[in-house]
Amino acid sequence: MNRTEAIAKLINPRSIAIVGASAEFHKVNGRPLKHLITKGYKGQILPVNPKYRSIADLPCYPSVDALPVAADLAVVAVPAKDVLPNIEALGRRGVRSVVVFSSGFREMGADGQTMEDALVAKAKSLGMVLCGPNCLGFINAFSNVYATFSQYADGETGPGPIAFVTQSGAFGTAIAALARQRGLGLGYFINTGNEADVSFSELMMAVIEDPRIRVAAGYLEGLSNGRELIELAHRCQVLDKPLVLTKVGRMESGVRAAASHTGALAVTDTVFDAAIRQFGVLRARNEEQMLDMLQALANPRRAVGNGLGIATQSGGAGVMMADRAEEIGLTVPTLSTETQTRLAGVMPAFGAFGNPVDVTGEFVARPELLRDSVVALMDDPNVHVGIVWLQLMHAYVDTLVRIFAEIRDRTNKPLLVCWVAAPSEALQRLRDAEIVVFSAGERAVEAAHALVRCSEFRRRSVSIPRPLDRSSIPDDAKDGLQPTVSAVKWLGDAGIPMAPVMLAKSADEAVKLWQAIGSAVVLKVESPDITHKTDIGGVLLDLNDEVPIRDGFLKLTRTVAEKLPRARLDGVIVQPMVRGELELVMGVKRDPIFGMVVMAGLGGVLVEVLKDVVFRIPPFDTEEAERMLRELRMSALLDGVRGQRGIGRRGVAKMLARLSCWAATAESSLAELDLNPVLVGSTGPIAVDCVMVLKRK
Amino acid sequence: MNRTEAIAKLINPRSIAIVGASAEFHKVNGRPLKHLITKGYKGQILPVNPKYRSIADLPCYPSVDALPVAADLAVVAVPAKDVLPNIEALGRRGVRSVVVFSSGFREMGADGQTMEDALVAKAKSLGMVLCGPNCLGFINAFSNVYATFSQYADGETGPGPIAFVTQSGAFGTAIAALARQRGLGLGYFINTGNEADVSFSELMMAVIEDPRIRVAAGYLEGLSNGRELIELAHRCQVLDKPLVLTKVGRMESGVRAAASHTGALAVTDTVFDAAIRQFGVLRARNEEQMLDMLQALANPRRAVGNGLGIATQSGGAGVMMADRAEEIGLTVPTLSTETQTRLAGVMPAFGAFGNPVDVTGEFVARPELLRDSVVALMDDPNVHVGIVWLQLMHAYVDTLVRIFAEIRDRTNKPLLVCWVAAPSEALQRLRDAEIVVFSAGERAVEAAHALVRCSEFRRRSVSIPRPLDRSSIPDDAKDGLQPTVSAVKWLGDAGIPMAPVMLAKSADEAVKLWQAIGSAVVLKVESPDITHKTDIGGVLLDLNDEVPIRDGFLKLTRTVAEKLPRARLDGVIVQPMVRGELELVMGVKRDPIFGMVVMAGLGGVLVEVLKDVVFRIPPFDTEEAERMLRELRMSALLDGVRGQRGIGRRGVAKMLARLSCWAATAESSLAELDLNPVLVGSTGPIAVDCVMVLKRK
Repeated sequence: MNRTEAIAKLINPRSIAIVGASAEFHKVNGRPLKHLITKGYKGQILPVNPKYRSIADLPCYPSVDALPVAADLAVVAVPAKDVLPNIEALGRRGVRSVVVFSSGFREMGADGQTMEDALVAKAKSLGMVLCGPNCLGFINAFSNVYATFSQYADGETGPGPIAFVTQSGAFGTAIAALARQRGLGLGYFINTGNEADVSFSELMMAVIEDPRIRVAAGYLEGLSNGRELIELAHRCQVLDKPLVLTKVGRMESGVRAAASHTGALAVTDTVFDAAIRQFGVLRARNEEQMLDMLQALANPRRAVGNGLGIATQSGGAGVMMADRAEEIGLTVPTLSTETQTRLAGVMPAFGAFGNPVDVTGEFVARPELLRDSVVALMDDPNVHVGIVWLQLMHAYVDTLVRIFAEIRDRTNKPLLVCWVAAPSEALQRLRDAEIVVFSAGERAVEAAHALVRCSEFRRRSVSIPRPLDRSSIPDDAKDGLQPTVSAVKWLGDAGIPMAPVMLAKSADEAVKLWQAIGSAVVLKVESPDITHKTDIGGVLLDLNDEVPIRDGFLKLTRTVAEKLPRARLDGVIVQPMVRGELELVMGVKRDPIFGMVVMAGLGGVLVEVLKDVVFRIPPFDTEEAERMLRELRMSALLDGVRGQRGIGRRGVAKMLARLSCWAATAESSLAELDLNPVLVGSTGPIAVDCVMVLKRK
Repeated sequence: MNRTEAIAKLINPRSIAIVGASAEFHKVNGRPLKHLITKGYKGQILPVNPKYRSIADLPCYPSVDALPVAADLAVVAVPAKDVLPNIEALGRRGVRSVVVFSSGFREMGADGQTMEDALVAKAKSLGMVLCGPNCLGFINAFSNVYATFSQYADGETGPGPIAFVTQSGAFGTAIAALARQRGLGLGYFINTGNEADVSFSELMMAVIEDPRIRVAAGYLEGLSNGRELIELAHRCQVLDKPLVLTKVGRMESGVRAAASHTGALAVTDTVFDAAIRQFGVLRARNEEQMLDMLQALANPRRAVGNGLGIATQSGGAGVMMADRAEEIGLTVPTLSTETQTRLAGVMPAFGAFGNPVDVTGEFVARPELLRDSVVALMDDPNVHVGIVWLQLMHAYVDTLVRIFAEIRDRTNKPLLVCWVAAPSEALQRLRDAEIVVFSAGERAVEAAHALVRCSEFRRRSVSIPRPLDRSSIPDDAKDGLQPTVSAVKWLGDAGIPMAPVMLAKSADEAVKLWQAIGSAVVLKVESPDITHKTDIGGVLLDLNDEVPIRDGFLKLTRTVAEKLPRARLDGVIVQPMVRGELELVMGVKRDPIFGMVVMAGLGGVLVEVLKDVVFRIPPFDTEEAERMLRELRMSALLDGVRGQRGIGRRGVAKMLARLSCWAATAESSLAELDLNPVLVGSTGPIAVDCVMVLKRK
């Protein structure tokens, strides 16, 4: 049984042993048994506890060794110190999937970490997959598997199209309870706890394969393997199932708090955010936005464009929604003449036929007015998702539910109803009719945006370019700062535009190189001990005559001797003087979570203040590089570069894509690369300085 | 009776005539009567309708003229065409305050506008104040005045400390209903409709004087008089009553939609936003955030600093709240050693004693753990407002309500409880105990921020500087573009640092002026017909010798003759060449809503892309100018200017404050002033170009 099979068995077991089972059903170790029995689990339930002969008419086994079968899953609910021996026993008994509730591991500090390491080592040696420790366990609501003590299980947990995996037990339980309040059904509820062995991404990867699951939602506090998450995002894309993630630790203090809370390696949020955006994951900023998105995404209808049609009974609410739509990049299109004519035919004179359409309160008297105007709006070719806003109307629930059902049947576009201060009966009846309903206008707009983003990503070519066949960095290159001439050559070989560099060992050589170049040059000190040449005055610009070049060479060698007497000096780099209209920076770094990461940003003093940089996971193609550049706040500057139309933006995107293909093959050796500045002129971008540091893995 | 007295009578009448009253209580014209009777209005109710002799045992009068008394208030609920004659009759009968429900006025287009203009003219001529038309009317819940047909009146409308004034009927009703759902009591609910006569600000100004009102909330779609709003904000500040506003039309499309919806003059949102921030108004982005803020502000406790203490039973929720706190500028302070010691004494070993404090689920077993740790947290000197986050706990409502009441009594700092997926009983009981409770963590943080901002503003010196005694613009200055020499003189006289300018009529004069200056100069064409000199090549920089200056003069005159042969040429401006390390822009414009507005921003090409500008209403002092500058995204650049420490920022702030004092006196004559660029160097800022356009009001 491989790991994937073991995880599949874990989430859908035909038999469950509960190690440390209690007959006291309110306790942590009694609750799984209670739920399995009362909610009708069809498989075999095998309580293990020497204190009992039987619990609730089920035979109870005195020890793991006494189990009559090798259960598909074991739930371990014993004190921390007893976990390891039980895991050993389970291994002996042939059990390959366990969930460990017990706390007292990594979250308790160094001693706990040692115990957890031992636990993982044991599980691995036994070929066992382990969820937890320090977790609430999980629910597979389709098969009534309640391997959990979460309070969420106390209420109705009817299955539904959502798979929800959470790193937090308490917050995850709250989110699940809120989902239930909104009538959203969870097919799976999984708390991963310490993730000592099985990770968030692995468990989510398993549950999204279930054909009854339509959408995946996750709550994250940290991440130890970014590549796994990217594979998950890919798989969701292939299966056409949206993935919505909420991750806390967006800000510095949050990251700090998250690190101290989970003990997990804190993820750089900007890299995380860029990576999931690149791979089509929707990020919800908090639990409420996550649930708003899930409401829209759990419905099978998808938007085929980004046009939002809005109908309201309040002009102001329409304006508020139009504001929010514009802010997040939806269009609120002007309606076609045909649509406007249709609307004029059904609406009162004092309504508004634009978009938002203001149907006014008049529809109370003439319900068909609401139906006909919304259907006309939805039929408009530029409208891809519709929102109808209304409020109160406690006396008209029957009529309105009927009308919304009629509208639903007359369009195949997604329709979101926003009913503010609605009668609770109305919400339930609309949900029963599979009509998505929200309680606030901006929430509906943000949910519409999730539908649109989801479809936009689906329409994208997900062609990931091939990385280079092999790294252009030679196998025998040593760790540390690389000689500029070598680094420039390796990058140039990979098709990355680099200003040529040559090394002069003497002033005479420098002059000869200048003569060969035939135009103004730059001189830079070259030393394996000097990373930031400018800081020590190690760069001289725009020299174009023999005397200044000769003087320059001497000045640079003197500067190094004075300021950094211990630095080894290899010579002076001679490079043609390049000018550009715009200054960029590009870089590559090895992220502990996501591996290679490519960065691009705008250079110069203003941008040091703005910190206007964007990230992507390599390799990526030119289209992705263009999207990346559009995320820069100063992106418009790229269009200001003269030369062939658009050469600035397109040329920079091409260079970035090439850099990404190079970076993807360099993971085993590259620690960091800085191209700063990259100058963009009328012939395209070119890197004029390069700092490359290797550190073999 | 002056206008203020008439408005005071309008909102608190001892007798109410209902013109067009109906015995059919579900109708628009029957509903006020129903509510006045059933909800126990103590004053005199006077229905007017020739169709009835009596309604609900009240005598009904056939016409306004037949009324036995001049009612304090008349509600007019008749078709649009009948409004004017009834207003005339009410005026004859001595009624001075009316609310007009009837629609069919400005909102219907040009004909409606004409009718509305006639209505206002009539009311004014009769010395009458008029609320509406096209409004739902209002409720004064303290005196059971139900001069409304809003659905909101159908439910419980028990009075409370909030005054809510809304320009939208439908949306306003929804907001009021949502407030009721949250247990927030409205003392006043007022819909202003078309605001043909009495405005939003006037009505709010009246109700905030009621001592039972603790906080004011408004929903806006447009504004015709910004100064009134500023006076309202001032008054709220004096009364120490927070004012919370939600205004739709934040984005361009929203503004467009708002304009088409209300017919009102759309307010430039950036100016509105700056003005209300300047005067301490809290802006809520939507109805949910407004209600979140009101929950916190309706409680009498105020924060005396910006330190947020967070206690949770979920580390993740704590991180999410810390994220949001940092993002919006709250601090989540490290706790004092004393606090940490206290916490260590009460909490389990696996809790977290930092801030956020993670009390873990353990408090279920030991309720005093929650109480003691939260009290310790609240006692920390750097904590000014506290949030306790918990979820579900349906079995522990009694215990938790008791504990929160104990915590409330042991601290006088504001405490916000965030109880996710709470039992509804718990929410009600906490509210009854005057404990503020939220349903989501980020909402609680944003509400805490509202408390903090409110107190910050209260602590500020609200010393508004005196504008200049009189404008430095001479009374006889003509409308249009002003000669540079004059404009620079007027600004210089007002203490605004301006680079000196002199006009040369000939090349000889230009040379003489350069010689007098004694350093490099700039030449610029001077013409009443040329506003943007650079665009036509009318500026020559850095000339420092006789020949280039002579050539330059000729070149500029030739350029004008060629490019703009009809332009009148006054000569060429000669100005010393000024250099700076940073380029800014400053300006003044006359806004149709707010009057004079001062702008500051960063100059140069990058900033054209960023549009990094900020606004203020003049006059303001140096402190306010510093706050203004801090709002620039590129604000940190001001600290990069060398010279005396901080001279950049402080000097620019001083210059802006002076400009504001000058601008405040220029309202009657100034249309627009652009100082672009203002160069900031080691000696402070100086404006080197100036475009001033006058247009007398």
